[in-house]
Amino acid sequence: MRALVYKDVGKLVLEERALPHVKDPDDVVLKIKAVGICGSDVKIIEGKHHVKPDTVLGHEFCGEVVEIGTHVHHVKIGDRVAVDNNIRCGFCEFCRRGLTSQCVDIKTSALGVMRDGGYAEYVLVPEKQCFVLPDEIDDIFGTQVETLATVVNGMNTLQMLPYEYVTIIGFGPIGYLFAQFAKNIAAKVAVSEIDPFRRELAKKCGLTAWDPNEVDIPSMVENFTYGKKADIVIEATGNGLEQALKCVTPGGKVLPFGMDSSITATVIPNEITRWATKILGLYLGQNTMVPSIRLFQENRLDMSHFFTKVITLEEGLTAFSDLGLVVETLGHCPKSAMKIVMKP
Amino acid sequence: MRALVYKDVGKLVLEERALPHVKDPDDVVLKIKAVGICGSDVKIIEGKHHVKPDTVLGHEFCGEVVEIGTHVHHVKIGDRVAVDNNIRCGFCEFCRRGLTSQCVDIKTSALGVMRDGGYAEYVLVPEKQCFVLPDEIDDIFGTQVETLATVVNGMNTLQMLPYEYVTIIGFGPIGYLFAQFAKNIAAKVAVSEIDPFRRELAKKCGLTAWDPNEVDIPSMVENFTYGKKADIVIEATGNGLEQALKCVTPGGKVLPFGMDSSITATVIPNEITRWATKILGLYLGQNTMVPSIRLFQENRLDMSHFFTKVITLEEGLTAFSDLGLVVETLGHCPKSAMKIVMKP
Amino acid sequence: MRALVYKDVGKLVLEERALPHVKDPDDVVLKIKAVGICGSDVKIIEGKHHVKPDTVLGHEFCGEVVEIGTHVHHVKIGDRVAVDNNIRCGFCEFCRRGLTSQCVDIKTSALGVMRDGGYAEYVLVPEKQCFVLPDEIDDIFGTQVETLATVVNGMNTLQMLPYEYVTIIGFGPIGYLFAQFAKNIAAKVAVSEIDPFRRELAKKCGLTAWDPNEVDIPSMVENFTYGKKADIVIEATGNGLEQALKCVTPGGKVLPFGMDSSITATVIPNEITRWATKILGLYLGQNTMVPSIRLFQENRLDMSHFFTKVITLEEGLTAFSDLGLVVETLGHCPKSAMKIVMKP
Amino acid sequence: MRALVYKDVGKLVLEERALPHVKDPDDVVLKIKAVGICGSDVKIIEGKHHVKPDTVLGHEFCGEVVEIGTHVHHVKIGDRVAVDNNIRCGFCEFCRRGLTSQCVDIKTSALGVMRDGGYAEYVLVPEKQCFVLPDEIDDIFGTQVETLATVVNGMNTLQMLPYEYVTIIGFGPIGYLFAQFAKNIAAKVAVSEIDPFRRELAKKCGLTAWDPNEVDIPSMVENFTYGKKADIVIEATGNGLEQALKCVTPGGKVLPFGMDSSITATVIPNEITRWATKILGLYLGQNTMVPSIRLFQENRLDMSHFFTKVITLEEGLTAFSDLGLVVETLGHCPKSAMKIVMKP
Repeated sequence: MRALVYKDVGKLVLEERALPHVKDPDDVVLKIKAVGICGSDVKIIEGKHHVKPDTVLGHEFCGEVVEIGTHVHHVKIGDRVAVDNNIRCGFCEFCRRGLTSQCVDIKTSALGVMRDGGYAEYVLVPEKQCFVLPDEIDDIFGTQVETLATVVNGMNTLQMLPYEYVTIIGFGPIGYLFAQFAKNIAAKVAVSEIDPFRRELAKKCGLTAWDPNEVDIPSMVENFTYGKKADIVIEATGNGLEQALKCVTPGGKVLPFGMDSSITATVIPNEITRWATKILGLYLGQNTMVPSIRLFQENRLDMSHFFTKVITLEEGLTAFSDLGLVVETLGHCPKSAMKIVMKP
Repeated sequence: MRALVYKDVGKLVLEERALPHVKDPDDVVLKIKAVGICGSDVKIIEGKHHVKPDTVLGHEFCGEVVEIGTHVHHVKIGDRVAVDNNIRCGFCEFCRRGLTSQCVDIKTSALGVMRDGGYAEYVLVPEKQCFVLPDEIDDIFGTQVETLATVVNGMNTLQMLPYEYVTIIGFGPIGYLFAQFAKNIAAKVAVSEIDPFRRELAKKCGLTAWDPNEVDIPSMVENFTYGKKADIVIEATGNGLEQALKCVTPGGKVLPFGMDSSITATVIPNEITRWATKILGLYLGQNTMVPSIRLFQENRLDMSHFFTKVITLEEGLTAFSDLGLVVETLGHCPKSAMKIVMKP
Repeated sequence: MRALVYKDVGKLVLEERALPHVKDPDDVVLKIKAVGICGSDVKIIEGKHHVKPDTVLGHEFCGEVVEIGTHVHHVKIGDRVAVDNNIRCGFCEFCRRGLTSQCVDIKTSALGVMRDGGYAEYVLVPEKQCFVLPDEIDDIFGTQVETLATVVNGMNTLQMLPYEYVTIIGFGPIGYLFAQFAKNIAAKVAVSEIDPFRRELAKKCGLTAWDPNEVDIPSMVENFTYGKKADIVIEATGNGLEQALKCVTPGGKVLPFGMDSSITATVIPNEITRWATKILGLYLGQNTMVPSIRLFQENRLDMSHFFTKVITLEEGLTAFSDLGLVVETLGHCPKSAMKIVMKP
Repeated sequence: MRALVYKDVGKLVLEERALPHVKDPDDVVLKIKAVGICGSDVKIIEGKHHVKPDTVLGHEFCGEVVEIGTHVHHVKIGDRVAVDNNIRCGFCEFCRRGLTSQCVDIKTSALGVMRDGGYAEYVLVPEKQCFVLPDEIDDIFGTQVETLATVVNGMNTLQMLPYEYVTIIGFGPIGYLFAQFAKNIAAKVAVSEIDPFRRELAKKCGLTAWDPNEVDIPSMVENFTYGKKADIVIEATGNGLEQALKCVTPGGKVLPFGMDSSITATVIPNEITRWATKILGLYLGQNTMVPSIRLFQENRLDMSHFFTKVITLEEGLTAFSDLGLVVETLGHCPKSAMKIVMKP
């Protein structure tokens, strides 16, 4: 089968690979229906995210069950399923205390990062990672069930209330999804996004959107909220915690959701204490695949500007520049896409 | 009346002052029964805490009602009351949303800091700051109702569970109170305290106590918790947030409670996100005076090592060295007290 | 001034009353701008709700400040304010623990029930009950700030999540407001309402609405939720707790919000335990006047079918039949209004 | 091997059974070290609890791993393990939303109820039900890890705070465990228990204990709490919900934990609403086996009066009368035990 394989920094290649087959009794083989390109995939190719060389990338995918192990009882051949790419062991203390997002195996077992993922025609996954899709969710949306599941976990943690003012730093796919929730729920929402294409999309979604290079975001937030500042600040870039702390109202919540391992932040503990700020770290889904399916099934989010284009696996090799990465030089360029999905 | 008045950095003087009398209809005059010396008072004299010059210090006090305004209906002359020294306006958006610890007036209205407090024979307070004491609580304990109320607010926020491992950084009066709660509730508790006198008190209380100058606290916590690290870290010094983040388990909670406006901390947002850390800022009581009274009334905390000595107002002038401050030089010395209370 | 005064069961009369003036230092006199007729007012006239005879009814009102006491500092003459009609003492243990909705004085001090309210040209209220209205909220909406505040407290307690299925029993004004929140936030919403006029309004709001006399509500809920039943059931009539328990999914929440003191319910404790049902009683606002103002200010709820008509005080005498009560016979009739507002 | 097998109502027999062996790849065979007799076992024999005939009873057990399936990776032969007897499928919507206590398979898969349990020398269990015991927990305590886990889930739901007043209805093993937590944490605790032997044990534990046949419990609670009533009422009998509602303070929490399918209760919804009562149904553990192990490991609960005696499997046939059941007549007698453990 054809597969896009990570070889080294800046080096993603189209290879012919052997078809995967079930080995363990709870294994399932899927024919990939569609797979999204995630911001983490961009970071992997840049060399800014851990990855195992020679791995088929791609962790946002859905597929059809074509082969099952001897101890598989809950999915059957022909089922169309979304996949949770993070395999939780179920036995470590975190899993057993219900905090599966902190499973000790997550770092070593993620599909499309540490073992073969969805940039291919077929993939091998454990049964428990599969979630049957209802007909209302097509293959394109099916790729984003797990992405949405991470955001839903953020929403569960934030407990956003209808009278709250919300600020979102970063309008990539994660910021987009948070913003749609906030638009439905909260009193007022504003977005800070540096990339012109994505900032324009935010406006098309009916959101107030600011360019942090042109305006002072904390001042804008203060004006926008009648001097109150934001009850909730969602940091979806990985480098805006200091900014977020300037935008949040006393007693408010900051969700540092975006990840960038190269960043440190200088904070003033006295202010966190004095202003009763709550900083609620989080990045993964947890018990949220089913909720995520419900949301897409009922079409509860305005996704009209989310999917920029659907391409082939071959075209995937050149798609990264749309997401801001010049693969050849590892330099950055303006973006021209929100989410790109491949159909193998 | 006699009063200890803050004049300038390093300058606390015993003065003769006019007796206070009710002015506003909701005013109450108290005869002070006892008043504690708080760590903030030490910081005020050092010049490290805001204060209004020419103010009678002292915000940990209880007294007897001796005069009441025309619109006072809930306390009467002769009542013995504890006092919440933080006057919340009741009208700002924070007060009206229930977040009274963030009242916009708190900075300008605190008794014993911005208006005359309890280092005196009498004091003028608004009726709503008074909480009638039951007989089971004597005057000495009565001075600590508000102090405990701040800690109770911390406990409300932490929602400490009986199987959790708890680490407390700092064993001053605040750390002491948190430690007693944790000893009652949690699975295991350990304390880090730099001062030998106070570390010794922690041991007398039956607590595991470490000297951060002698051992590596995060390693100690890791060993103490069978490699799990602490579910809850309470930072009660103001300068240990970085340390706290090293001691907390994935998904755990850090309470930065101590205050030190001179400190900045360098944190790695990626780790807060990756390890799902919750940082829950907080420093004041809120709806917790009544709970605090209940706790002292039932004698639920081991207070046997809390009160080091009871002295006169006059002796207060020289008591600060017991709390680690050489007033003359503004230098520091080893402590020889936990809490000192004055009886005017 | 003219006022509608409750004399006895079935007897509301238009009287000439003396203008109220400030007595206590914290008193404020308002010129009433508008006042809503609440379902409780209907119950008062029916004799099914406690009330003090000879009281000016009306607790949903806003007005303009025309006179202030000597100790009033936070509103000024000319301010347009919404009013929280439930006066909380601030001193009982409930108030002091933050549970002001359980203030021991609430039963005896409610404006428009136990002391003169808003069915009049002027009213005397304590300053702390007043909340200044921004220009975006007109007088008609201003009457509903407190009504919405009770619903917001319900929303705070429910912590409704975007993937939840919600069922609302009863589509009077309270059910209407809950339904608009649920329509914004939740995955799916359905309403059960017996009155044809109000059920029709629910449909005009785009809601799924059922007649409990024609269909079996628990079966409808089960079908509507793909066999899952509702995550949240809001009971807004006072007589549907048994029904609500049949509609809720295991682990789900029931909010018994409607009040009817004539009802008892038979429940099976074993099922509440086995199915991990959470029953969360609540009826009043608490810290929710400001949030309520925010919501109206941002126009976050579809109120287009809420206000049926605006009438004069005189017309108020005959308006109760629109709300289902034949005053002469104390019998019931079909309703022809959701909310009626009077302008004195 | 020898096993105590449920045949029919009132009929438990000692049988010789074939040794169990692994069938599925994730199976484990345990040599039973000890097994407790649960109150549900008593109800099973009485015919008041569902059960599958011809099943080896016993769901409170620990054992040593003696055989493992091909896909077992987390326990090894020789491990001493406690067992969670409730097998959750991991695939139903409840499991996948994290509410594993509501797993749709629980009713049909429970060890010792619907499939062979621990009243025997050996038992077959899925690997994921096993939790390795540290040395500090002996076999007798090891039988109670799952029992404690259900109570810990109750504690997680209650979020008991140190200033709260707690009342516990029923002092069987579940009431005993809740009472020990409350004694550690809460301001005041009282117990209502009808059986003289158990009430006497409560007193030996230092608890205030009342006989509901001799005193009026709600009045006692009111006096005991200075007129406030209980912040938390834990109902651990299955027949005391009405009583519990009379004991709880406005805004307080009732935990209906005990189960008795023969009981209905008449409640007044208006009062639940008016007094803002929270009724929080729950009966099973969920993510609480590890916490439970931590608690026994640290010896955090006073268990000195919990285990009444340790007997052989053969003696188990006649032990039920100590637990209040005359097996021959299915009548009741006074109890003479709290918890009885068998060593096969």
